[in-house]
Amino acid sequence: MFIRNAWYIAAWGDEVGDRPLARRILDRPVVLFRDQRGAAAALEDRCCHRGTPLALGQIVPQGIQCGYHGLVFDPTGKCVLVPGNHNIPRGAFVRKYPLMEKDDLIWIWMGDPQCAEPASVLSYPYHNDRANWPHRHAVYHIRGGYMLVIDNLMDLSHLGYVHGGTVGGTPATHIEASMRTLGTATGVRFDRWMIDSTPPPTYVRAVGFKGRVDRWQETEFFAPSTVLQWIGAVDVGTGVLRDWKYDGVREGGFSFRLLHGLTPETGTSCHYFWSAANGYRQNQPEATELLFEEVGKTFEQDKHVIEAQQTRLLETSEEGLVDIHGDGARLHARRAVDRMLAEESR
Amino acid sequence: MFIRNAWYIAAWGDEVGDRPLARRILDRPVVLFRDQRGAAAALEDRCCHRGTPLALGQIVPQGIQCGYHGLVFDPTGKCVLVPGNHNIPRGAFVRKYPLMEKDDLIWIWMGDPQCAEPASVLSYPYHNDRANWPHRHAVYHIRGGYMLVIDNLMDLSHLGYVHGGTVGGTPATHIEASMRTLGTATGVRFDRWMIDSTPPPTYVRAVGFKGRVDRWQETEFFAPSTVLQWIGAVDVGTGVLRDWKYDGVREGGFSFRLLHGLTPETGTSCHYFWSAANGYRQNQPEATELLFEEVGKTFEQDKHVIEAQQTRLLETSEEGLVDIHGDGARLHARRAVDRMLAEESR
Amino acid sequence: MFIRNAWYIAAWGDEVGDRPLARRILDRPVVLFRDQRGAAAALEDRCCHRGTPLALGQIVPQGIQCGYHGLVFDPTGKCVLVPGNHNIPRGAFVRKYPLMEKDDLIWIWMGDPQCAEPASVLSYPYHNDRANWPHRHAVYHIRGGYMLVIDNLMDLSHLGYVHGGTVGGTPATHIEASMRTLGTATGVRFDRWMIDSTPPPTYVRAVGFKGRVDRWQETEFFAPSTVLQWIGAVDVGTGVLRDWKYDGVREGGFSFRLLHGLTPETGTSCHYFWSAANGYRQNQPEATELLFEEVGKTFEQDKHVIEAQQTRLLETSEEGLVDIHGDGARLHARRAVDRMLAEESR
Repeated sequence: MFIRNAWYIAAWGDEVGDRPLARRILDRPVVLFRDQRGAAAALEDRCCHRGTPLALGQIVPQGIQCGYHGLVFDPTGKCVLVPGNHNIPRGAFVRKYPLMEKDDLIWIWMGDPQCAEPASVLSYPYHNDRANWPHRHAVYHIRGGYMLVIDNLMDLSHLGYVHGGTVGGTPATHIEASMRTLGTATGVRFDRWMIDSTPPPTYVRAVGFKGRVDRWQETEFFAPSTVLQWIGAVDVGTGVLRDWKYDGVREGGFSFRLLHGLTPETGTSCHYFWSAANGYRQNQPEATELLFEEVGKTFEQDKHVIEAQQTRLLETSEEGLVDIHGDGARLHARRAVDRMLAEESR
Repeated sequence: MFIRNAWYIAAWGDEVGDRPLARRILDRPVVLFRDQRGAAAALEDRCCHRGTPLALGQIVPQGIQCGYHGLVFDPTGKCVLVPGNHNIPRGAFVRKYPLMEKDDLIWIWMGDPQCAEPASVLSYPYHNDRANWPHRHAVYHIRGGYMLVIDNLMDLSHLGYVHGGTVGGTPATHIEASMRTLGTATGVRFDRWMIDSTPPPTYVRAVGFKGRVDRWQETEFFAPSTVLQWIGAVDVGTGVLRDWKYDGVREGGFSFRLLHGLTPETGTSCHYFWSAANGYRQNQPEATELLFEEVGKTFEQDKHVIEAQQTRLLETSEEGLVDIHGDGARLHARRAVDRMLAEESR
Repeated sequence: MFIRNAWYIAAWGDEVGDRPLARRILDRPVVLFRDQRGAAAALEDRCCHRGTPLALGQIVPQGIQCGYHGLVFDPTGKCVLVPGNHNIPRGAFVRKYPLMEKDDLIWIWMGDPQCAEPASVLSYPYHNDRANWPHRHAVYHIRGGYMLVIDNLMDLSHLGYVHGGTVGGTPATHIEASMRTLGTATGVRFDRWMIDSTPPPTYVRAVGFKGRVDRWQETEFFAPSTVLQWIGAVDVGTGVLRDWKYDGVREGGFSFRLLHGLTPETGTSCHYFWSAANGYRQNQPEATELLFEEVGKTFEQDKHVIEAQQTRLLETSEEGLVDIHGDGARLHARRAVDRMLAEESR
């Protein structure tokens, strides 16, 4: 049960070059490639002649050529060459999926192509603002359903238990955090503030905090599967929480933005696209590198927990599980996804 | 189809320490740990919040803490802490399994807790008698159902074919063995004697027999899954078989006791707990070591045969198999297990 | 859905020696061995006592002995010894499969033994003519159904795409080839000629062609699963194509014969038995060796493509696939196989 009428991240732009890239998305085999002009294209990864994956083939001027008997498909999926045949047989085509390349990301639409609205692709301008937000990105493979990763991101109280050594910090810091959760038209937004708290190890390694800090975590979920975060901290006394809003200085301390894009591979596995952009020491490449490494380590820890959780849920289902106070944002997110599913099944 | 109302070995006592131990038993995920006072506890290995295995967590003063969001469960399975929550939600608990620790073994009861009778746990005092029966122990993982291991132990004619290089000896020795099988209230007992026979290689390596021996193998099966053995040999002419009873000297030669505890992991795999205690050269640690190595090698050979057998039976079932003369004890054991299954299903 | 009443290659003669060989054929476990006189035998690989694979056992004078409890089966599958038992229980036998050893190959009949007609085993005399056709052989395991390999061999237009670096040559050579396809009583025969064409890399490495060549590929498929080929080339101008028949010199250039025998292992995997015999530089063993290596490399490339194709077809079936001009011989072959299936199901 996937939401099909939605944009999902298919690949980082720089993953798609002069060789075909095979990727399973929403349990369908997809091949991604660039045509001669550099435009990205996505086709069903199955030649319509004998079913061989097109990803075994090669990019040619007209499109992509099957590596078995040489059929060529253009970026719309139409077969334009059958070697040794004067006529292209009727029905010789493969399915084409709409793509949108934007902000270093290639988004794909797996549902009804008529509904694919380019304007509804999420904007993430920070990827283009390399002066203020230098970033690095990656994609992790998770043997767990994409909603388990969304769950993970919606309950940040796990930071004290799973990420104590990197971006988490102590459990107490998270227990004492102030938090506000707001349902939005497209998902949920929640903010957490830890005024006068202990900085986590990654924060200290990045900017050398000597004492306590004022810290913020601002998270927004866009259904079905994107999460954006702005996170940071400044020296204690600099940040202020006023009327449930962080109203202090954001500069001069530690600050980073995370993009999390989850794309279902199968019902129980997903591709985790993420980038980490730093808002401090922007002209020092090693600062971007350190942030990338710390966040990478952090997400490896999440992967470990989520994969174990998926294994257990596969055998026991969610029967008997109980919700706790910290599940507020998570339940908002689940409801937003359920609304989309219900709408699509109508 | 498992017998649930029975004690099974869950672990060796020394396997359970200051870190949680995950083990699948009767196809249920179980986590074993010790509380602050050193008492062993066994819980369902699935947090009641989001289903994460508790074995990823850590031992804390009150019990075990989930490694994801920090919920704490006491040794009875009750949730006693939800970080950041003043109230523990109703229904926040995980299943607890009764345990009994005795003779170096931790026994678990996976069935109806009301029926768990501590007095029915098997005694094995030799584990505590280190002066006369020094021992070493292990647990092997077998990709075969536990009854295939019981079958193996109930027909020792396999020793000549599978274990010729260790504890077996020649096929002829086993063919000519005298044997008596007796059904018991809890299973079956069978004794085999090989008077004036060739000692197997392990026997010679252990005590240096120069010539032929009088040899005994006394085996008792306690349904559903424990087998105890006393095995040994003395110089020929020393042992006597009188009125279907071994009535000779037991000392001065080779002698060892084996405990075999089979615990179903899934319907087609099991945990094989075993110990080997030596009744010769008791004050020489290298004698205990040699016995452990020879028995370990022997059980690796069994594992190899049983796993191949399981693979074949999985595809063909037991259809068309025929029983032979040597299957007497095996059929007794199968009947004892079938009686327990029938009783439990009533 | 296998054709059962047919001879399949079970093994190369030299694979079966003094140790049992286990091989799954038509989804049944088979054990192959030679009796004392050197005659090959094939039995169900499952002892009728406890189901253990007989392939774990050993060859004995009377036949094969189970490695678990020592039962012995003669080459007809009859149990002739149960150690320690005076009488052999009724029903103690395993299924025996008819075999025919001929031309270095051991053929097996998995269907109704009454229908096994020795005369219908294919002849391949080139294996015995070591002076004119020195050869080497192998067996590859393919994670793809046997018909996908037949498909592969029936459409040689893949040579330009998959085997450009070995026996293929350029795509254009294949597109421009002359071809004739003829249905036969037992399958299909098709011939391809490439007069005045560029020799592929393997041809040049083998005999050092300096310029263009006249080239032939003569292929015959015998349903259900054998393909024989005679392939070669001579200097341009030497070969002649007359009345759809190659009517020129065959000697003095490059020439080799391939035998391809496909034996289903499961519905989606097979054993690929093949030999390569050279008709040039016959007294130089390194010529035979080079041909074997080049053909081996070539079939590894096919394996790679076919396994990817099988994976895709397993999830999508053949739905929506379209036939092209080059599928003529392939469709003949499929029809021959379908005829056999239909006949067998009557």
